[in-house]
Amino acid sequence: MHVVVNAAMSADGKLSSHRREQIAISGDADFDRVDRLRADSDAVVVGVGTVLADDPRLTVKDESLRDERLERGDPANPARVVVDSRGRTPLEAEILDDEAATYVCLSERAPIDRRMELSDRADLVTAGEERVDLLRAFAALEREGLEQVMVEGGGELIFSLFEAGLVDELRVFVGPKIIGGRDAPTLADGEGFVEEFPTLTLAEVARVDDGVLLVWRIAE
Amino acid sequence: MHVVVNAAMSADGKLSSHRREQIAISGDADFDRVDRLRADSDAVVVGVGTVLADDPRLTVKDESLRDERLERGDPANPARVVVDSRGRTPLEAEILDDEAATYVCLSERAPIDRRMELSDRADLVTAGEERVDLLRAFAALEREGLEQVMVEGGGELIFSLFEAGLVDELRVFVGPKIIGGRDAPTLADGEGFVEEFPTLTLAEVARVDDGVLLVWRIAE
Repeated sequence: MHVVVNAAMSADGKLSSHRREQIAISGDADFDRVDRLRADSDAVVVGVGTVLADDPRLTVKDESLRDERLERGDPANPARVVVDSRGRTPLEAEILDDEAATYVCLSERAPIDRRMELSDRADLVTAGEERVDLLRAFAALEREGLEQVMVEGGGELIFSLFEAGLVDELRVFVGPKIIGGRDAPTLADGEGFVEEFPTLTLAEVARVDDGVLLVWRIAE
Repeated sequence: MHVVVNAAMSADGKLSSHRREQIAISGDADFDRVDRLRADSDAVVVGVGTVLADDPRLTVKDESLRDERLERGDPANPARVVVDSRGRTPLEAEILDDEAATYVCLSERAPIDRRMELSDRADLVTAGEERVDLLRAFAALEREGLEQVMVEGGGELIFSLFEAGLVDELRVFVGPKIIGGRDAPTLADGEGFVEEFPTLTLAEVARVDDGVLLVWRIAE
């Protein structure tokens, strides 16, 4: 499995305002880049916080990219994955529509009634007691044939993936805005590291829209 | 007055770990760049949080740069400025040593005994009731002849300067580490913006050490 984390952050490292309102950080060129990356992926992963805040659909927007996928024998859209320890994904969430397959990764703490409701619209993966055990959940996804995986946030999930050693590559668009806020979501939230910080190698720097795309790989 | 904010942040936008321990984010080339920037400045400004966490001296480290300053008739080191609403700068702080002039910017809330102690070692600027009124404080510094001003953090001060419209340029070294942590200090903390986000123009992108230097100007 190859895991690429992709995100757009402000010049000060924020994913959104402290009100969790989505802010336009990037532009059309970055939008196209993200769409291409989705089209090249077997699965697109988000945390439930992102589902609750933004209600994303996570499908490929460009029809020609969907056609390319169909021509090579893939479904039109990559599978969608929600990491959702307690089963809080709303049944009316866009991510549960029928445009693509969806997996919901739960912990054992997710209530049985929520499991039953969600199982009508998604494949369920249970791993971990209180929180989703990402290593086990991602291993289960790999067994489902999901090899090329893209993670679109949020900051809590991204931190947990770094903590679990699951990230192979980090692609960050850094945009021309200051969002600020000690409580605003950042690229990597969670508890935070205090030692043995994940170390990266800068693979690519490219100006995109009015900002810059940084491609980092995990240093061996 | 021309205000340049300079900082080093991790790939996920953090200035230090959530324990506020300094993390080596940049390397020798960035260190030299910062020293040169200090040498080119009339004053180097930090918030009291940075003084309490890191106890920086903020002097120019390279002797030849200090000599250059002396040759053009400037003091060997730029003035140092602490923004310190309540007068919490410790008397034994390095920033109060006799290597350079120091200004402490206080609000009216700073206790009289602290004012008296600090006035032995620094020039005091009082502006604002509860918190330092940065517009007034910086105007007072400008009247002291401090034209080219460099701000070295932390995130609370940097946010307040953006809020006050005082930032002309932002130079950020983005380093090859993930620090993470929803409570870790970021490049711009404070309350955060919720609308009218400061908009930047990307003036320069350069690989430095194992990371990248982004130079942003405030868009007109």
